[in-house]
Amino acid sequence: MGLVLADDLLGRGLQRIRGEVDGLFDALLPVPEDGRARLVEAMRYAAIGAGKRVRPLLLVTVAEMYGASRSAAVRAGCAVEAIHAYSLVHDDLPCMDDDDLRHGKPTVHKAFDDATAVLAGDSLHALAFEILADPATSSDPFVRAELVQALACASGYNGMAGGQMMDITAAEIELDLRTVTRLQQLKTGALLGAAVEMGAILGKVPQEGRGHLRAYARDIGLAFQIADDLLDHEGDEAKAGKALRKDAGAGKATFVSLMGAEQARQQARALSEQAIGHLQGHGDEAELLRALARFVVERDR
Amino acid sequence: MGLVLADDLLGRGLQRIRGEVDGLFDALLPVPEDGRARLVEAMRYAAIGAGKRVRPLLLVTVAEMYGASRSAAVRAGCAVEAIHAYSLVHDDLPCMDDDDLRHGKPTVHKAFDDATAVLAGDSLHALAFEILADPATSSDPFVRAELVQALACASGYNGMAGGQMMDITAAEIELDLRTVTRLQQLKTGALLGAAVEMGAILGKVPQEGRGHLRAYARDIGLAFQIADDLLDHEGDEAKAGKALRKDAGAGKATFVSLMGAEQARQQARALSEQAIGHLQGHGDEAELLRALARFVVERDR
Repeated sequence: MGLVLADDLLGRGLQRIRGEVDGLFDALLPVPEDGRARLVEAMRYAAIGAGKRVRPLLLVTVAEMYGASRSAAVRAGCAVEAIHAYSLVHDDLPCMDDDDLRHGKPTVHKAFDDATAVLAGDSLHALAFEILADPATSSDPFVRAELVQALACASGYNGMAGGQMMDITAAEIELDLRTVTRLQQLKTGALLGAAVEMGAILGKVPQEGRGHLRAYARDIGLAFQIADDLLDHEGDEAKAGKALRKDAGAGKATFVSLMGAEQARQQARALSEQAIGHLQGHGDEAELLRALARFVVERDR
Repeated sequence: MGLVLADDLLGRGLQRIRGEVDGLFDALLPVPEDGRARLVEAMRYAAIGAGKRVRPLLLVTVAEMYGASRSAAVRAGCAVEAIHAYSLVHDDLPCMDDDDLRHGKPTVHKAFDDATAVLAGDSLHALAFEILADPATSSDPFVRAELVQALACASGYNGMAGGQMMDITAAEIELDLRTVTRLQQLKTGALLGAAVEMGAILGKVPQEGRGHLRAYARDIGLAFQIADDLLDHEGDEAKAGKALRKDAGAGKATFVSLMGAEQARQQARALSEQAIGHLQGHGDEAELLRALARFVVERDR
């Protein structure tokens, strides 16, 4: 399923959320007329017009399923996307993965410079929590605080940053499937899980009603990462908009190197079906989540 | 006033808060037995046993003046200190200020490596908001959300990171005193201001009762930075525990280069006195804030 098919449910959903997220980042990041201009330009470069916006779409869809306002959910979606964008800016740095291309254009440190990239990442990181703590996101302070807690826990050493650390050292040690799974659950799964959780928080779903949503998020998170490994293994660099074949070059264990491409593909599809199964208590309002579960394993970028 | 004089009010205050902050970071950062161990070791290296802890002391003192619980205030103080610590780790990176020494020991990227330093900074950044959003910091969600908002605004492009960006470009352009003041209000003042504001938030001081506290914070923030420029100009590297004379070497405009050392010293002292003047409505309970206002301009590190 390609992103160009705007006439289907998922295509329309992604197109709509992309416009909303870009519009909000544009409004939140006016370029000041002082020495910070370069910083804010770099933040805009990293945050606007780039990325699939899978995380905001997940968040908004779950939030709307439970009756939360779309504009509030778009704000929370921007917060998750600000964290995702900062992590890409920092991961692309020369001292990290040293990538020159992201979303089909030069990475932030290439278009600006390393110092600006570090600070733009840091500033997007802070912006995420500024958005969530603002009463405009929710008039209920309990919701605001819970949103912050979910996103902060998913971002730090018990989540995304911890997974990235494990990934960096992955080339040096022999990883088994269990460790790669754990690594990816932190590096990618935690933030996807936070997007779903934050939708549930905005929808005021009680803790005991979130089990199936968490199971859905866990399954698509893992499926998403297996698909990413498959893309890295056999994808088209022009479509992906970034350098591929890096993991094999670095001698890193991935789902593909450990399971083989064919078994990895079957596993990703099985997880996608399993994710859809968790939504059986929902009707049409969850159709976008089902389409997303299929999309994450079939995407070509 | 030296830090060794533990028998005076300020010395005791700093010694006590140092123990509390170190203890809480130690409890919050157990080293996991997986690939994240190196990351958490680097976070501990950056956060524990280092720094004067001026920001947590400011926060805790203001909070206690208004009857907030000390343990809650120490948690919020740790959050501010986590932001301060992350900013030092990132500022010291080779692509930023490229410093080898901090608090008298090798900087994080020297003791570990650049990638670990980036991720340790990012993880301390997330930890700050994780601490604040946790109900253990305050049972009142409004207080938690307001704490997050104050700290996030002070950290991002409208605060600390924005000031750091201006500072990086400062060597390239001719800055006047007004611009240097604005730069420093962002780079250093915003976070000191946040510490005082967060103390007021925990103490449930209404907005209209915070004016004198904000004025105090603004004055000591500027005095703190002028003293920093004086230290950079004429301080003792062994006592400071970091490289000095870097600004003049880089051709950066500072308060000292623009005003001369003697006028800068007088200005710092005048600001310190002015800060103390804002506290005239308070009695003995503000004595520590007065001592801090004197300390920031007389310190030798």
